[in-house]
Amino acid sequence: MSRFLSVIPVREAIAAAEKIAPKKKTGNVPVEQSAGRVLAADIVADADIPGFDRSIVDGYAVLAADTIGAGDAVPAILHCTGRVTMGSPDPGHMVTHGKCVYTPTGGVLPQGADAVVMVENTEEAGDTVLVRRPVSPGENMLLRDDDFRQGETVLSAGRLLTPQDAGVLAACGCVSVPVSQKPVVGIISTGNELVPVSSRPGAGQVRDANASMLAAYLQQYGCIPRIYGIVRDEQESFEAAIARALPECDVLLLSGGSSKDDRDMTAAVIAGTGEVLVHGIAIAPGKPTIIGRIGKKPVFGLPGHPAAAFVVLIAIVCPLLDRILGLHKPMFRTTAAVLGESIPSQKGRQEYIRVRLENGVAFPVFGKSGLLHTLIKSDGLVRIPSVCEGLEKGVSVEVILW
Amino acid sequence: MSRFLSVIPVREAIAAAEKIAPKKKTGNVPVEQSAGRVLAADIVADADIPGFDRSIVDGYAVLAADTIGAGDAVPAILHCTGRVTMGSPDPGHMVTHGKCVYTPTGGVLPQGADAVVMVENTEEAGDTVLVRRPVSPGENMLLRDDDFRQGETVLSAGRLLTPQDAGVLAACGCVSVPVSQKPVVGIISTGNELVPVSSRPGAGQVRDANASMLAAYLQQYGCIPRIYGIVRDEQESFEAAIARALPECDVLLLSGGSSKDDRDMTAAVIAGTGEVLVHGIAIAPGKPTIIGRIGKKPVFGLPGHPAAAFVVLIAIVCPLLDRILGLHKPMFRTTAAVLGESIPSQKGRQEYIRVRLENGVAFPVFGKSGLLHTLIKSDGLVRIPSVCEGLEKGVSVEVILW
Repeated sequence: MSRFLSVIPVREAIAAAEKIAPKKKTGNVPVEQSAGRVLAADIVADADIPGFDRSIVDGYAVLAADTIGAGDAVPAILHCTGRVTMGSPDPGHMVTHGKCVYTPTGGVLPQGADAVVMVENTEEAGDTVLVRRPVSPGENMLLRDDDFRQGETVLSAGRLLTPQDAGVLAACGCVSVPVSQKPVVGIISTGNELVPVSSRPGAGQVRDANASMLAAYLQQYGCIPRIYGIVRDEQESFEAAIARALPECDVLLLSGGSSKDDRDMTAAVIAGTGEVLVHGIAIAPGKPTIIGRIGKKPVFGLPGHPAAAFVVLIAIVCPLLDRILGLHKPMFRTTAAVLGESIPSQKGRQEYIRVRLENGVAFPVFGKSGLLHTLIKSDGLVRIPSVCEGLEKGVSVEVILW
Repeated sequence: MSRFLSVIPVREAIAAAEKIAPKKKTGNVPVEQSAGRVLAADIVADADIPGFDRSIVDGYAVLAADTIGAGDAVPAILHCTGRVTMGSPDPGHMVTHGKCVYTPTGGVLPQGADAVVMVENTEEAGDTVLVRRPVSPGENMLLRDDDFRQGETVLSAGRLLTPQDAGVLAACGCVSVPVSQKPVVGIISTGNELVPVSSRPGAGQVRDANASMLAAYLQQYGCIPRIYGIVRDEQESFEAAIARALPECDVLLLSGGSSKDDRDMTAAVIAGTGEVLVHGIAIAPGKPTIIGRIGKKPVFGLPGHPAAAFVVLIAIVCPLLDRILGLHKPMFRTTAAVLGESIPSQKGRQEYIRVRLENGVAFPVFGKSGLLHTLIKSDGLVRIPSVCEGLEKGVSVEVILW
């Protein structure tokens, strides 16, 4: 193989990866465990929520008109005709001119009433209630369907569910929530310099840090990572490891192989049983990335430098995972920031710069992509499009947070 | 009990909660599952990382001085004396004046060399290598300990671990990572108007959405939530539920009870077997919050309105959880933003305003705290300190993201 990679733009690499995304599989999870999962079907309110006009304070249901001008000096004087019991249907209390009904927070608003006076603004003397502050129609109450209307789509398929969404789903009666299944992502490490985390590296050796880092990220990204350990850079053991992993995984990452020989071997192994679709991407860090397919499974050859592997995971692999999960927008958070320092960039490749955030200002964290410590000293990535020769201090940027 | 709560400031309520935090318990997790957990001990590099000077490109290890002035027209001509094998100790190659050694990415830098020329900038003809671009000393290589120095504290106890941290831990040989155990947080729902999520609410009834929402948030916050279902607002069944839950939990949340009667009952039940420490906080939403202790376990009475319960969870309960987890800063993310609209506020209470973020601008999402939909239409909370009468449009704010 040539020692020069013929790189393709990031956009095309993502498209190539998305094209081979396996079909989404769906399942169900209990509503209280649904946060962080991707909703697999639209959810419709099965009834009005709330199902009745409710008081939102402890107080007296009144006709607002009866309280006009009420104050400390001249309170409105009303006759209390009853009390609403929590969780019970309206027992037929009727609020008419001069009357009121005690209604606790969450209680059914009695017929006729159009507002609630907070108990703190009243004084009770037997059945007589002195109202010391006026209320407007609709005050201190919720209307039936104020939250959601029966038949309304409350949450749409493809949404990354939050804890609050779990509350909405529970309110709609979803005990069990349809979600995308977590893709299983296998990680095979290659590289003769790698030793397991449990080993003490000898001369010329390093521990396999990338597999743990990739697995940890994938777990937080809603996947099931599966680490297959380190294989020697020998075609046979490499092929055997892939053959073992592939049936158990939806996506396979071949991690390491930072040297050209390793990359060539990775490409050769993929080509041997499948197809190499991309070998080299106009991205920095991460140029020597491979995208291929074996059978129907996407297989990535990731660069060996930790920062490069991490950037490629986020920039190239995650869009594929989003597709498998049926996500409508990337799972990672982004935030707007102002660039704190100018960053030069090489036109023709998309650069991902690690940045540290400080009060909304993003400062680049420069450092060789072979180092781990730049990853833990930064808060995320700023992307410099391939058409730019850099970004000026002071411009607005979007930071992909990690 | 009085119908007026004697509220205390948020700061004091948090201090009261933190004071009764149970002691942190620690355990171990595999490094690849450590992201999202709280580190329970300082981690020290057990060796220099990397353990040797390394090339970070595929190329030729050289004396930088030999490449001064090298260019396409007049390349530097070097004699290649060997090749470094990945993962092997330096076999004794020595780079001296006029010599070079092929060194793959990640390979041990041969003795004598002080830089590496990328293979793309060279041409090989037998043992002769033409170098077409000069390199500076240190270029394209990492020094031993460039990442971490033996004995250096690489990560400190109390840190919320990220995937990149997992990479660093793996590089340091931490197969198993000491972390805080996840606190078990029990949730008992009260309120005669509540029915289970699986039920269809009758007249005057609503589904218990809060328990699912609280549990989902707690799960994402690194806790183990345990839902105990709904108990009637009757002292005996309430006490029985607490007696059953308490031994299994580190913290207990009593959810619901939005009406004054419910709150009074909750306070009475806590006071009956334990101690009520706080009843009423100068916070909006969320004023009628109860903080108590039964035995050595913290017990919270949360307000019934969903938005109020959620704000109290974040503002009051989470600081206690941070303490139990040994976290050095809150687990939730915050982001800097500019306020897009002025927000009036009532002096004397700390307000938490739901906001929607749009390109770094935070717009308030107003709505009654009894509604769920304001929670799913917002991205987080902006806090208005109790000494403020509001916040002006255009000021910088910190948004607590959810």
